[in-house]
Amino acid sequence: MTTKWWGWGESSRSYDLQDRKGFFVLLQEKLHCSGEVVQQPANLESLQFPATRADAAFVKRLVGIFGEENVHADGKDRFLHSFGKGYLDLIEAWKGNSQHLPDVVVYPTMDSQIAQLFSESANWDFVVVPFGGATSVVGGVGRGVSDGKVVVCLDFRLMNRVVSIDEESLLAEVQPGCTGPDVERALSQVGLTLGHFPQSFEFSTVGGWVATRGAGYESTRYGKIEDMVESVRLVTPQGTIETPRVPASAAGPDIRQILVGSEGTMGVITAVNLRLRKAPASKSYVGVLFRSFEDGIETMRTMIQNDAVPNVVRLSNPSETAASLALARRDSAPLIERVGTWFLKKRGYLDSKGSLLILGFEGSHKWVRFEQKRAIANCKQFHGFPLGERVGRAWYKERFELPYLRDELMKMGLLVETLETATTWTHLSDLHSEILSAFRESFEELQVPGFAMAHVSHVYRTGASLYFTFMARQLPGREEEEWRLIKNKVTDVIVARGGSLSHHHGIGLEHVKWMQQYWGPLGVRVLKSIKRELDPKGMMNPGKLVPSE
Amino acid sequence: MTTKWWGWGESSRSYDLQDRKGFFVLLQEKLHCSGEVVQQPANLESLQFPATRADAAFVKRLVGIFGEENVHADGKDRFLHSFGKGYLDLIEAWKGNSQHLPDVVVYPTMDSQIAQLFSESANWDFVVVPFGGATSVVGGVGRGVSDGKVVVCLDFRLMNRVVSIDEESLLAEVQPGCTGPDVERALSQVGLTLGHFPQSFEFSTVGGWVATRGAGYESTRYGKIEDMVESVRLVTPQGTIETPRVPASAAGPDIRQILVGSEGTMGVITAVNLRLRKAPASKSYVGVLFRSFEDGIETMRTMIQNDAVPNVVRLSNPSETAASLALARRDSAPLIERVGTWFLKKRGYLDSKGSLLILGFEGSHKWVRFEQKRAIANCKQFHGFPLGERVGRAWYKERFELPYLRDELMKMGLLVETLETATTWTHLSDLHSEILSAFRESFEELQVPGFAMAHVSHVYRTGASLYFTFMARQLPGREEEEWRLIKNKVTDVIVARGGSLSHHHGIGLEHVKWMQQYWGPLGVRVLKSIKRELDPKGMMNPGKLVPSE
Repeated sequence: MTTKWWGWGESSRSYDLQDRKGFFVLLQEKLHCSGEVVQQPANLESLQFPATRADAAFVKRLVGIFGEENVHADGKDRFLHSFGKGYLDLIEAWKGNSQHLPDVVVYPTMDSQIAQLFSESANWDFVVVPFGGATSVVGGVGRGVSDGKVVVCLDFRLMNRVVSIDEESLLAEVQPGCTGPDVERALSQVGLTLGHFPQSFEFSTVGGWVATRGAGYESTRYGKIEDMVESVRLVTPQGTIETPRVPASAAGPDIRQILVGSEGTMGVITAVNLRLRKAPASKSYVGVLFRSFEDGIETMRTMIQNDAVPNVVRLSNPSETAASLALARRDSAPLIERVGTWFLKKRGYLDSKGSLLILGFEGSHKWVRFEQKRAIANCKQFHGFPLGERVGRAWYKERFELPYLRDELMKMGLLVETLETATTWTHLSDLHSEILSAFRESFEELQVPGFAMAHVSHVYRTGASLYFTFMARQLPGREEEEWRLIKNKVTDVIVARGGSLSHHHGIGLEHVKWMQQYWGPLGVRVLKSIKRELDPKGMMNPGKLVPSE
Repeated sequence: MTTKWWGWGESSRSYDLQDRKGFFVLLQEKLHCSGEVVQQPANLESLQFPATRADAAFVKRLVGIFGEENVHADGKDRFLHSFGKGYLDLIEAWKGNSQHLPDVVVYPTMDSQIAQLFSESANWDFVVVPFGGATSVVGGVGRGVSDGKVVVCLDFRLMNRVVSIDEESLLAEVQPGCTGPDVERALSQVGLTLGHFPQSFEFSTVGGWVATRGAGYESTRYGKIEDMVESVRLVTPQGTIETPRVPASAAGPDIRQILVGSEGTMGVITAVNLRLRKAPASKSYVGVLFRSFEDGIETMRTMIQNDAVPNVVRLSNPSETAASLALARRDSAPLIERVGTWFLKKRGYLDSKGSLLILGFEGSHKWVRFEQKRAIANCKQFHGFPLGERVGRAWYKERFELPYLRDELMKMGLLVETLETATTWTHLSDLHSEILSAFRESFEELQVPGFAMAHVSHVYRTGASLYFTFMARQLPGREEEEWRLIKNKVTDVIVARGGSLSHHHGIGLEHVKWMQQYWGPLGVRVLKSIKRELDPKGMMNPGKLVPSE
């Protein structure tokens, strides 16, 4: 499999916009965009790369540690390790910007090599940037702050083994470079699953999930990745920490939950002991249409607070519902037509407030039937109109595809990005409105046609996550400035209103400036004290997560 | 309500051993103990207490901060604040030992007073010991290491308000001095519950639960206290940290999970935002008898791994089963007799391997029926014999009573103590056997008749907690030495075999010497770096949790 350096996923895959005429109507209406291709990414083969700043003797030492074949200092390899998948990353990639290249890329195969690399910091001045699936959308890989020091990129793709599976205790020891399919393939052979299915599932890695506190689509039932980590091993410049392999403990502060979320700034994750579950015998996904976003939110809240725990419960706001229906093809649109658009409209479901809920249960046949029935009753209580399994299945089938659409939209000259937060039920609806206002104000200030939509997902008894997708006409030559203005305005609102600074994307470079406000000055001092203890020279992923002194 | 300074709980309550003849047979058989009362606690009124070491000017300053009525430096008050409820605490209390008295007891009513107290550390040399329900069994309160400094005991009993309840988001802001009944009384008025029911429920406090990572009887379904904390506020010598009130976050290491479990060594918890749930409409508790401990363990494991989540699933090993039956009175014993002891014996349930499981579900009527049925089928698969609801109900009714029994047993000249750990299913049975061997070896080495029993409870998909109760003839004059020999031998086995150093009792004074081995040297360095940042003078609860330099 080769992957796209300038966009999402596999080189051979793209989002097929044929047959999705409704979507072009939406683009025209909201963004005054004709859908014509107006730009393409740079040609990789014609790019020039600056020479590595790494001393030849240092590279030779790295070869001694990692082996000839696992040390790369040529321009192209380094270029391909210089971007994540955030909008800013892609903007730079498309332009062929080679300002942020690491100086050497190494591929470790075992912990001891990484420890040796760290011990070389006594002789050489360098920083280390861990690299997994490079799907970060917050500047977690690539662009960084090296203060002119040599940057060593540690690519974990060779550490991609499921080391062992304990079928009795439902645990697997997994190496950090395993992707989602690597993990699930090994587990499915013994009838097990991890149950972590982020949108980036096919490409992101265990190390990345754990380092950034990711969440999968099914987190409502299965928890976020931090709930799935029984133990973790971190190799740091000061030595190795491995947390005890116990299901729970009362031995003081939970050091495991310090290492989880450390984003490569304190050391690198080299092993994770993951909590598994039995693969579900039955899956059922349905769509339910609500007359308003508020009805849908109340449905989700009462459902989870009455102890129903669906695998997926995901409510699109009216704009996202309209966009989903506009994007829909064979699988789901005709169903809506069959139900009768006129009927749904008449009943108030397809006006500007209609909100689509996707509801999925997985487990034993009996359990799925029991819970699905109860959940549908709950939906009906708030006037939800069940659309049946086809809509649900269509969502399920396409759940990893949407990021491919961004590549197509960028070709049309559009800014496309996502951001997310989480808050309590009490503040959810207000925060949703305030964030949409901040988007609108940003677009007005920039004087560009723009459009933002949202869904509620990752549901908890006390609250839920809010996930936004936004698009705007690109301002050529001012792409970063345009993005920053929107990002800042919206994130200011999120943090001021008490939303989480991130629910599952992490901090990286892009959220670091709100850390002080989010955790408070003393919280950040705690974080820094840990960083200082494990990485006294500040050589680990500098500029990310931890605000600089 | 007045509480026993020398034993458990309310002064007016005690464990009634009348009608429990079987238990005396057991005491005679296992401990060569006739059941005769051979000792009594010291007479409080005749005790002499050393004068406070606190300077009069310092006490005056404290009066300025906390008010006259909330500052106590008299001997008796200080004595009553010098013990927890571990065996070592009680031994000292019975003897009237007044070596470990704090010098002043203060009762804060608001955060700002505590901050002021800390700011006085610029002028006076003192240490601070937070004091909640004082139910610690690991030396979390009372005895400590003050290096001759003045000890200020912060008793939180006046900060016992449920400040607010958010019924929409199922959250309550609670002050640290609230006891279990304080919390549940307020919540039940609006149909809610926290669901945290430790054995100490009636006396222990929210601050103590959170500071020590406690677990309630229903943790299998509702989680440990750390899962119930949405946010927490800690007032430290360096200022206040309050974690954001969000249901989940990916903003780096989880600082909340550093403050939870900090055992008063980094600051004091002054507010907790707790996650609530709706009070269950229906409760059902049953007993099930297994032919062997192993059958019972397999039942629990398969149950939880097939996604059944009982509120309580608690399996006594054969010795504890025998002791429970010996202790049983009207409620349950006659039932066993009705079923027919001869019948159960004939079928292999009442021989030396019989193991009793308590199984409880709480929730909607429908859900309880659905899950109870499924769970009983699961039990039968492993030859479990359902004993019906009476046995279950008897357990439920007496679940907070057992600690009172210890007081009676101590009067008979017995050492009585508990300890616990948690491990994965794969190691559970072996660890159980190894710990029992360590107990046996300890009793042999001490040449005392002794007896240990256990149950499995607090169940997870990957493992479970093991909880031991042990008794031995006291060695008069050598009580501490006797206890230490047993405790050390058993804890050495736990830690060497990878069990958790504590599952829910915490670290306190008694487990601190294993912290280095448990978390590893670098893990302990992380802990110390946080402690140094928040409490640079080392004035917070010294000697507890964090190994000394």
